[in-house]
Amino acid sequence: MPQAAKQFPLIAAIDLGSNSFHIVLAKAEHGEIRILERLGEKVQLAAGIDEQRLLSEEAIQRGLDCLSRFGQLIQGLPQGAVRIVGTNALREARNRSEFIRRAEALLGHPVEVISGREEARLIYLGVSHSIADTPGKRLVVDIGGGSTEFIVGQRFEPLLRESLQMGCVSFTQRYFKDGKITPARYAQAYTAARLELMAIEQGLQRLGWQEAVGASGTIRAVGLAIKAGGLGNGEINVEGLAWLKRKVFKLGEADKLDLDGIKPDRRQIFPAGLAIAEAVFDALDLQRMDHSEGALREGVLYDLLGRHHHEDVRERTLGALMERYHVDVQQAARVEAKALQALEKVGETWKLDDDWHRDLLQWGARVHEIGLDIAHYHYHKHGAYLIEHSDLAGFSRKDQLMLALLVRGHRRNIPRDKFAEFGDEGVKLQRLCVLLRFAILFHHIRGAQEMPKVQMQAGPQSLDLTFPAGWLEANPLTQADFDQEAEWLTRIGFSLTMR
Amino acid sequence: MPQAAKQFPLIAAIDLGSNSFHIVLAKAEHGEIRILERLGEKVQLAAGIDEQRLLSEEAIQRGLDCLSRFGQLIQGLPQGAVRIVGTNALREARNRSEFIRRAEALLGHPVEVISGREEARLIYLGVSHSIADTPGKRLVVDIGGGSTEFIVGQRFEPLLRESLQMGCVSFTQRYFKDGKITPARYAQAYTAARLELMAIEQGLQRLGWQEAVGASGTIRAVGLAIKAGGLGNGEINVEGLAWLKRKVFKLGEADKLDLDGIKPDRRQIFPAGLAIAEAVFDALDLQRMDHSEGALREGVLYDLLGRHHHEDVRERTLGALMERYHVDVQQAARVEAKALQALEKVGETWKLDDDWHRDLLQWGARVHEIGLDIAHYHYHKHGAYLIEHSDLAGFSRKDQLMLALLVRGHRRNIPRDKFAEFGDEGVKLQRLCVLLRFAILFHHIRGAQEMPKVQMQAGPQSLDLTFPAGWLEANPLTQADFDQEAEWLTRIGFSLTMR
Repeated sequence: MPQAAKQFPLIAAIDLGSNSFHIVLAKAEHGEIRILERLGEKVQLAAGIDEQRLLSEEAIQRGLDCLSRFGQLIQGLPQGAVRIVGTNALREARNRSEFIRRAEALLGHPVEVISGREEARLIYLGVSHSIADTPGKRLVVDIGGGSTEFIVGQRFEPLLRESLQMGCVSFTQRYFKDGKITPARYAQAYTAARLELMAIEQGLQRLGWQEAVGASGTIRAVGLAIKAGGLGNGEINVEGLAWLKRKVFKLGEADKLDLDGIKPDRRQIFPAGLAIAEAVFDALDLQRMDHSEGALREGVLYDLLGRHHHEDVRERTLGALMERYHVDVQQAARVEAKALQALEKVGETWKLDDDWHRDLLQWGARVHEIGLDIAHYHYHKHGAYLIEHSDLAGFSRKDQLMLALLVRGHRRNIPRDKFAEFGDEGVKLQRLCVLLRFAILFHHIRGAQEMPKVQMQAGPQSLDLTFPAGWLEANPLTQADFDQEAEWLTRIGFSLTMR
Repeated sequence: MPQAAKQFPLIAAIDLGSNSFHIVLAKAEHGEIRILERLGEKVQLAAGIDEQRLLSEEAIQRGLDCLSRFGQLIQGLPQGAVRIVGTNALREARNRSEFIRRAEALLGHPVEVISGREEARLIYLGVSHSIADTPGKRLVVDIGGGSTEFIVGQRFEPLLRESLQMGCVSFTQRYFKDGKITPARYAQAYTAARLELMAIEQGLQRLGWQEAVGASGTIRAVGLAIKAGGLGNGEINVEGLAWLKRKVFKLGEADKLDLDGIKPDRRQIFPAGLAIAEAVFDALDLQRMDHSEGALREGVLYDLLGRHHHEDVRERTLGALMERYHVDVQQAARVEAKALQALEKVGETWKLDDDWHRDLLQWGARVHEIGLDIAHYHYHKHGAYLIEHSDLAGFSRKDQLMLALLVRGHRRNIPRDKFAEFGDEGVKLQRLCVLLRFAILFHHIRGAQEMPKVQMQAGPQSLDLTFPAGWLEANPLTQADFDQEAEWLTRIGFSLTMR
């Protein structure tokens, strides 16, 4: 089925989670996914499972009501273009077949209940397509309504997949049913989570990771609440967890948790989610966890497309961007080669010796002209807008912002203040910008003539160019360009000379 | 030559004006022009013509220096891909052939000195491609360095073309040579211009026009200086001219004209340009003149492409936009049909009976999804950005801003304040937005099912929808959509009911 899905113009994934149901409808084009629609509803299936592990008729009905809305959206989609997966609540419910039978009758597509490990695989696939494509190992955690998945992976490969039966809905049922929050109840929930984690923590830690990423609404909400408290930028961190726990104790009731980032319908299940998150941090000795937008449902879509193996995502993303905005590829290649050559000459003096320097300069050279496709007037700004706001698979948010700034500054005024916002890295980014501008000016004439060899001599805040004798005089546009450039650079305290 | 130019991927136009030289380099794709580069330099050729009508060697050299810079940019472009036109200064100079010979040797492309009428034709072609494609007649005026062109035209057809030998450089030579500005000198310049205008004013007025548009730097600078004085928004108007004249008298010297909008290198020639502009306003009884970015050089490019006749520019522009951003055309067509149907039903009650209402709604339906091509998240905002900033041939600035707002408001929150910025028209635009949203929700499921007939009943601030009995219950997504929509509309004081 996965391979065959490539033929469908529209594909959809439905995730029957223990807390929420989600649907994603997407266009599939050349192996790329363009999301057309996302809907999610809090169904809280897990809350409808009784002690006999039977889903109540009421919970079944809540689920089916939601699916009847989703169903309207996938009407007419052929078999194979829709994949519907159920997770922990349906794994647990002994009468799941009752629900599945009615859901399938309603939707006209098969419903699969997937194992925790399979769920972990799909989560990893979704996350790895939505975050920066870095070489190191990563830990991915998804705290769901009924289960929590853990994956250590590298690139697109999951190396270890685990699933624990603890989730924010089931733990709320058990420890915070009436909405009261006390330190004692919290400690019970926390301890229960630590006990669960004991089964897997050593195995995970043996593999190790360079970064921890969380999917799921719980992780997002905890991160945002911490941000609202001024202790981060949306990520979960240790100090933030400590602050948030005290804050939650002080409020004392789920209904009173009107913190930024916690939507009203999440308040009830928030304390349990927080306890699990803290237990995960302690058991795995984490300092920080970032949130990824990609999750199970995106993984299902990528699985439908058969996109499993690592490829250089960033290369593909940039290539797609260049094609989409009709970049003059020969010009981009000339600028890229010249910029990298310049980087080699001045990189040491300007301390531009990390991989990210080379990467950013290269990316900037490739995409600096995309804004031309919108309009010539202010095209550097349009290019920056496109880079800042596009879904660029394989790029981190910071990559995108830095690349956008590089494109923003590639001609005319150099927005010094915006570079300063990146601190020390911004200083280096500004130097990369000077190199990019040099390469662009050098090839201003778009390959119409052979360009000469130029000697470059870099000082801490200066660049001296030596052209072959007589060449500048014979090529007055280049001369005028660099004269003008020297003026722009003066404004950022930089000296450019030509001979 | 013009037809053949279609085969060249890159084309360029050079305009050897009496005040400035300009070059535009563009990609030609499917009859569309994408500007890659614009450069302009104040050469002031006209200032180098002596009483024997001979161009001084110094002026020739200034011109050639500039062309040697431009020349580097068009190196390697084949014959036929570059058109170079000289205007009044070269028409006047008796030794023009000396300049032409040296310029051709330098550039490797022929230099044509065109007549004033041909200049007027090309200016009109440039302007008519860059402003709103309205049906009425228009007056186009280009106050150049050595001559001023007047055209009355309709769509892409010039109906009457005139050229007078008065320009801001030659008038500066004659009346403001030392930079002193006195009412007496200004009166001399003004009177000289009125005398010139007498030859053509009746002919122009006999044809008449609905709007007056100006090309050229003089008109832009006068409009911006008036704007700086708080009397307009960049256009030239009668009160602004009166204010500006007094201001210029008070400053008394060209060097002191440091008003916003007047660049330092324009100060010398500004008083003469102002006197000509005032004379044109009085002779032709104008109230207002807007500035167009398109001018001679753009006209030359369109002429190279052979794009002369009227076609529905806006249709072509929107079609190109939809293609570029991969709009689902079937979905757009469904939404468009439904929106127009709704407009017919409620148009009278909501006073949406002008052509522009129908046009905007139709355009909005076609392009509301373009932002999806950037990212799903906030795609209505991305779509609005693209529409606001793209070069949309045939659309006025206001059209673009209104269309952008319609797209901005097509889903989620309706930005009431932004609609209010358009005053009474904004109230109607907001009603159009309600209709567009209705059509989009109605086709939320993208043609997956046949939609039923819906009765619409409009009140001043309300819309009542009647679906066939039982249909809404059977289609719960639509029901949920409209329930949600009723909430959004409540926020703008609007009531939506469904039965």
